[in-house]
Amino acid sequence: MKAVILLSGGLDSATVLAIASQQSCDCYAMSFAYGQRSLVELDAAKSLAKKFKVKDHKIISIDLAQLGGSALTDTTIAIPEQEQQGVPVTYVPARNTIFLSFALAYAEVLNAQDIFIGVNAVDYSGYPDCRSEYIASFQQTARLATKIGVEGREIKIHTPLIDLGKAEIIQRGLELDVDYSQTVSCYQANDSGEACGVCDSCRLRKEGFVAADVSDPTRYQ
Amino acid sequence: MKAVILLSGGLDSATVLAIASQQSCDCYAMSFAYGQRSLVELDAAKSLAKKFKVKDHKIISIDLAQLGGSALTDTTIAIPEQEQQGVPVTYVPARNTIFLSFALAYAEVLNAQDIFIGVNAVDYSGYPDCRSEYIASFQQTARLATKIGVEGREIKIHTPLIDLGKAEIIQRGLELDVDYSQTVSCYQANDSGEACGVCDSCRLRKEGFVAADVSDPTRYQ
Repeated sequence: MKAVILLSGGLDSATVLAIASQQSCDCYAMSFAYGQRSLVELDAAKSLAKKFKVKDHKIISIDLAQLGGSALTDTTIAIPEQEQQGVPVTYVPARNTIFLSFALAYAEVLNAQDIFIGVNAVDYSGYPDCRSEYIASFQQTARLATKIGVEGREIKIHTPLIDLGKAEIIQRGLELDVDYSQTVSCYQANDSGEACGVCDSCRLRKEGFVAADVSDPTRYQ
Repeated sequence: MKAVILLSGGLDSATVLAIASQQSCDCYAMSFAYGQRSLVELDAAKSLAKKFKVKDHKIISIDLAQLGGSALTDTTIAIPEQEQQGVPVTYVPARNTIFLSFALAYAEVLNAQDIFIGVNAVDYSGYPDCRSEYIASFQQTARLATKIGVEGREIKIHTPLIDLGKAEIIQRGLELDVDYSQTVSCYQANDSGEACGVCDSCRLRKEGFVAADVSDPTRYQ
């Protein structure tokens, strides 16, 4: 089956791509240049797309920085180095809705019914758009939004990581031959793709490798 | 109240902006350069934004042409000159979902709970993403997607035109002082903003002025 895979270039989406590939999907990857601080994650996405032999890889430029409102796209908001309560400042307003909407457009053009996204409700509990009830609702909206849905076919949003902890994700990925040294999770990686080691995303990733009892291949600054 | 208004520069969205303004909204307009054939509609959007004194007007560039699949963004697909059955070739895959997602991001950054969109189920019955059940579903998804929703506040997608015929829309707009000569509905307007007069959108618009018994101010080629 044809599937659209949202691929950020981070640890989670790399694992999702490996899972979709293992399920014998014809994978079409989609990434976004959305004004994020770190663009090296797009280089990581390109390497992953190549390694997993995707049929095509679209990189869509969208200007979320013009809207602001997140530490990931607004350099005047500092990236926090400690765990936060509630919705974190690194939350990008409506980001997953925007990403899923583009994936839906791509799926419709490809006549594909399957979309994979690496959302995770364990580590990202403060992000409203990483919860399963949100995904279920988007799936219903997608059915109503599209020609595919009108024709009576289902659109399925696959979230294979939603209930996994970081260590489990890493173990799953290693079984599927993901090279995590090629992935970039850091919110403020430098131009060489080296991670800061202190942001929320680095912290979660580090703890994941420790919990999985696997040596951490991340390149730190 | 603060409201985000999706403003294409066409007849429908101009009327929606007038309606939101009349309801004493602080209007924030949002338009898209999405690879559409006719960019003069964005000039129309700018004029309308100015006339109705919006607080801000964001024009977001997104590359839907890269995905293809619609006569509006793919110049190899001809714009039809007759009414079509089913989903028309001018349907842009997932377009309203993408537009509403950006409007949702903008609303969240503004801390606004109201989004206006000029969808119409009468004239655009073949477009799945112009139906009220689709809008209701998106509204539910929006509530689950956002910080605003998590905080227990509602997000409302306003569709004041959804059940109106073109003549009724025009009458409503004229009462609210919309200058329709400043709007561009044509799918293939020339660089001066002159309409072709033969595409589906022109045909509907023309018939609307006839039915409203109002002289048609549209500038034709």
